[in-house]
Formats: sequence, C-alpha cells, structure tokens
Amino acid sequence: MKLQLALDRLNIDESIEIASLVEESIDWIEVGTSLIKEFGMDSIYKMKQAFPNKSIVADMKTMDNAKYEFDMCYSAGADVATVMGVAPEVTIQTCLDKASEYNKKVMIDLLNTSEKQQRSLLQYQQAIFCRHISKDEQEINRKSNPMSNSIITLKQHPIEVAVAGGITLKDMEELQRRDVSVVIIGSAITKANAPAKVASEFKKFTMMGV
Amino acid sequence: MKLQLALDRLNIDESIEIASLVEESIDWIEVGTSLIKEFGMDSIYKMKQAFPNKSIVADMKTMDNAKYEFDMCYSAGADVATVMGVAPEVTIQTCLDKASEYNKKVMIDLLNTSEKQQRSLLQYQQAIFCRHISKDEQEINRKSNPMSNSIITLKQHPIEVAVAGGITLKDMEELQRRDVSVVIIGSAITKANAPAKVASEFKKFTMMGV
Repeated sequence: MKLQLALDRLNIDESIEIASLVEESIDWIEVGTSLIKEFGMDSIYKMKQAFPNKSIVADMKTMDNAKYEFDMCYSAGADVATVMGVAPEVTIQTCLDKASEYNKKVMIDLLNTSEKQQRSLLQYQQAIFCRHISKDEQEINRKSNPMSNSIITLKQHPIEVAVAGGITLKDMEELQRRDVSVVIIGSAITKANAPAKVASEFKKFTMMGV
Repeated sequence: MKLQLALDRLNIDESIEIASLVEESIDWIEVGTSLIKEFGMDSIYKMKQAFPNKSIVADMKTMDNAKYEFDMCYSAGADVATVMGVAPEVTIQTCLDKASEYNKKVMIDLLNTSEKQQRSLLQYQQAIFCRHISKDEQEINRKSNPMSNSIITLKQHPIEVAVAGGITLKDMEELQRRDVSVVIIGSAITKANAPAKVASEFKKFTMMGV
C-alpha cells in the first residue's frame, strides 16, 4: 500500500515545505488541481526538482485536450497524471496512449461516474482507479465513504485501486484489510499540528501485511 | 449573438497578440483550459489587464473544490467561469452561488452529460449552457455537430446557449437562425492566415437579426 500526500489550497513553497516535513513517511506526492490551476506547470516542475526520487502525481483532472495536457504534465516531471472517468472515452484512451509513450501512469478519477461508465472503464486495466469523495461532497456530508457506492470493488478485479476524500487514521485499518493500492491523504496530514508524526502513523498502516 | 474567442495551446504573450489583432470583432475572450493549467491564474490576470473592457471567460472546467477555484479565477479578473455539467450537483450549485456573490456568470459545459443530467441542469436558469464537441472528439470525428445529441435545444427553454467545438464560417448561418447566445471560435480564427479578416466575417453573422 502506497501513501500519497495530496497538496491543495497552498502555494508552491508551502507545499514543498510540508512535503519535506513528511518526506520519510510518504511514497507519492500529489500536486493538487488547485495548485495546477493557480500556478500552472511550475507547480509540478518545482515539486519534481525538490523531490526527484518521489513519484509526482499531477491531479490534472483532464476532461479534453488529452495529448496536450498529458505531454505538458509528463514533460514537467509528473510520473502519474489523472483523467476524469466522466470524460469522453477517446480522451481517456488518449491519456493511456500518452502514458505508454512516456512509460508513465494514468489514474482514472471515478468521481461522479455512473455504474455503466465504471463497467466500461474496467477495460483500462493498466490504469489506477481512484474512488473519490470530492471536497465539495465532503463539505455537505462528512459521513460519506469512498469505499461505498461503486461497482469497482477491491480484490474482485485485477486492478490497482486508490482511495481519496477525507480519509483519516480511523479509516486505515479497513483500507489496509481491503488491499487498497494507494491511499490519498490531504488535510489529515497538511492541517495536522504535527504533520510528521501523523504521517508516520499513516505510514505504519501501509507497512502492515504487505 | 456574442462572439467568444477561445485561446488554447498558446502562451500568454501569443494569446494577447492574437486577441489584439481581432479585438474589434470579438465580444468575449476565453482563457482556455490549456493556458490555465500551463500558466495558472497569471493567464487570466494578464488577459484582463490587457483587455479591461472585454468579458474574460475562464475555462476552468471545475469538477470539485468550487469555492476555491471560483474565488481564484473571479479574483484574477474572470467575468465568466466554466464548471462541468458532469460534476456533482453540489459543485455546480456552489459555482452558481459564487457567481451571485461576485455578480459574475457561470457557463455549464455540457460535455459528455447524460440526458438525465441535462434535465437536472436546466434548474440553473441563470447559467449559460455550453453545448460542446471536445477537441479529442473532433479529432476522431470531424463531422460531429455541437447542435446535435442534446435535449437542450434552443428557443425551447428560456436559457442562454453557447456552442463550441470546431465551428467554422459555414456553421454560422444555422447558429444565427437558431438564436444561439454565444458562439465560441478557436482555431478557425487563431490558426487563420488573416485572423482579423476571418474574425470580422464571423462578426457579421453575429450582427444579423439581433
């Protein structure tokens, strides 16, 4: 199980500072959509420069213009980039093609996908599937669980599954038991009083049973 | 009928240069998603500085984190910002709320929305609805028409409709007849040999019958 630190609603310097504090405990560093839209590809470039040995995830949330967007973020230093599962199929396919070309990875964000779309997306077995409770949904319903309401269940399919959306230490035992591949943690670490300590507690769960 | 110039796959200086060439013929200037993701909010800020009297459309394609993203782009100078119709309802509602707060506008991008989603979106009558053939879809099927395959037809509902996606001068008579509110033109102007001349030809159609 990998631990992905999601950096959002911060500037680039703050993001690098927080990532430095928790570097030992995390595997992947996500440059959040808000950083990308606020600061552009500089946010990805500088994160990769600061952490050349970490995998950098660019949360591009691509909906169109896949060749251009994926060329852009992979060239800037991203190792993984996200496309929306609700995007047209040709867009998702183009992202997968770009990933093959660069020998990098695609994460498909399942946010708001229908069951029919999820079934169709399962053809992309080389992608990572991200079950995602959005920030906006979390704000109206703090009880949502990224493990519910999806036909993409774990162990049932030979795919890598990531989970995101308000995950706290309390959720980790279940996620570990369910064999999740990537756990994405944002504010539980970035807003903690002692980020390094909290990150190391998350890390303990990712080391269990792997 | 308003003419919106879409700027994509360009840098900020190139975008400002092209917009200057065609300034007289266009009503709205769109800072495309590719500019936003490549250069961040600087792309919107600099466009508004260069054209303070034009409406600037930020093609944010928001899927989540609506408050933060809409605060960000409206503060940078955008007059209109886009949200995806395939986003969770709470996200779209939040964008509309932000628009009221700033006395600005939301454009809902209908890309890949289901009929059911379109019916539900019609509740947001203060938004502009953008019927959109994506760049990636255009590349595989140049015959698609942004006027087909949508229950959101013109004159049928008291809403403003924008159309985007590979529109050329040949499409303008039909769009004019159908009473489209905003016609979004990208490469037909930006890749023309004589952008100013082509833009003025588009402009002629927008002046007819209004």
